Amino acid sequence: MKRPFILVSNDDGFDAPGIIALSAALREFADVEIAAPATQQSAVGHAITVQMPLRQRRFDLGNGHTGWAVEGTPADSVKLAVTTILDRKPDLVMSGINHGMNTSINVIYSGTVSAATEGAILGLPSVAISQASHAQDADMRASAAFAQKIAKEVLERGLPTGTLLNVNVPNLPPEQIDGVALTKQGESWWDDGFERREDPAGRAYYWLRGKYVWDDNPVADDVALRQKKISVTPLHYKLTDHALFDEMTAWDILSLHDISDN
Amino acid sequence: MKRPFILVSNDDGFDAPGIIALSAALREFADVEIAAPATQQSAVGHAITVQMPLRQRRFDLGNGHTGWAVEGTPADSVKLAVTTILDRKPDLVMSGINHGMNTSINVIYSGTVSAATEGAILGLPSVAISQASHAQDADMRASAAFAQKIAKEVLERGLPTGTLLNVNVPNLPPEQIDGVALTKQGESWWDDGFERREDPAGRAYYWLRGKYVWDDNPVADDVALRQKKISVTPLHYKLTDHALFDEMTAWDILSLHDISDN
Repeated sequence: MKRPFILVSNDDGFDAPGIIALSAALREFADVEIAAPATQQSAVGHAITVQMPLRQRRFDLGNGHTGWAVEGTPADSVKLAVTTILDRKPDLVMSGINHGMNTSINVIYSGTVSAATEGAILGLPSVAISQASHAQDADMRASAAFAQKIAKEVLERGLPTGTLLNVNVPNLPPEQIDGVALTKQGESWWDDGFERREDPAGRAYYWLRGKYVWDDNPVADDVALRQKKISVTPLHYKLTDHALFDEMTAWDILSLHDISDN
Repeated sequence: MKRPFILVSNDDGFDAPGIIALSAALREFADVEIAAPATQQSAVGHAITVQMPLRQRRFDLGNGHTGWAVEGTPADSVKLAVTTILDRKPDLVMSGINHGMNTSINVIYSGTVSAATEGAILGLPSVAISQASHAQDADMRASAAFAQKIAKEVLERGLPTGTLLNVNVPNLPPEQIDGVALTKQGESWWDDGFERREDPAGRAYYWLRGKYVWDDNPVADDVALRQKKISVTPLHYKLTDHALFDEMTAWDILSLHDISDN
């Protein structure tokens, strides 16, 4: 088999421990190129930069960890790399290893998932991988090993166009992980709000803070994590709510032949 | 009926013509409060601000157009308003009128849709409305009139938790609009890339540019717009790809009881 070519990105920035662990693991069997944000971009969702031009620079952190640091979002990084910087098309896009899990509603806010989503939008098989710890020195052996396995299987099987896999790994050493679960996006949610503070000049500012309320549906991504399993969720971006579509066929607004009578 | 209370947001900023037109239209039958980004936030996707605190200030542009300018994203604005600033819960969240359509893949990148998504996440009926023109002096009478009609119907019927409506209005005077279509998110896409330029110091920078490739599925949001119809699409954020889920039950990675043998 020809050595595959994998584009690696993330949202924690090109020099985060997670992306270094991921690219090192993948380099064992693949050519790896990195295009990742120059700075931390957590919770940027699927932002892209349209009002400003992008800049990028080549980095070399040693041990083969070279690539492009893009002054933009995760989606920008992948889009710029695939359409413009790289001289060949990647066989796979992998985003991570994120420092912190991306399950349930967090998928919407996640820059890590967004980089993989952009890969899927560009027609490439794409995988996001996150580990349930924000510690910069977390033990990432399990995530790195699983990244290799899933990369190989996706390279072999492919993925339907426009889909991606969202992987979440418990923050445990490999020997304590209790298997792999195929899951659905959970319905855990943030019971959140803002803490009001005042600066020295007496002006108010607000810090986001919240409590995570866990879904307990057995097939939920979050539940797998709590059971010490690696969670793999197939995602797509077809957002139409078909049930509501069917209900709405009876709505009054649809009968407006024109609205000039308002 | 009690006068309803509507929270209005957008992504073009608190002083854009579209949000002024929307809030003026809704004030005819509702109490309206505005919480919108202090600055232009197009294409931010569902970004939220977690690394920095938020600030907000009260604005008053005259003619009743008062509210909160939030130094953050559309999702930040809605989250801060609903959880912290407002002293009562809105009956409805409306985002817009966006200057530019938000259909097909653009839904993913849209800050306008994101503000309504955040409303839906917070459990409130939510509607995004966009008009297919970037002109600051576009004729917004049709969008404003339809915003009133759909707001009234959503207030009366409610929406299932976690869903929102994405409305797109052709850039036409009301008398040229040819009805209202219930649609699904289209599959139009951007055949895009970046134009490389050099600054006076010889350093490269890249501008995003692209050609929009139109879906021609009769039920697509984009097709309704081209037929001079107002498009109404019900959306949700349950991203699991159930077809791929079923296929993946046969994947090898799932048989890994533990991954310590890697």
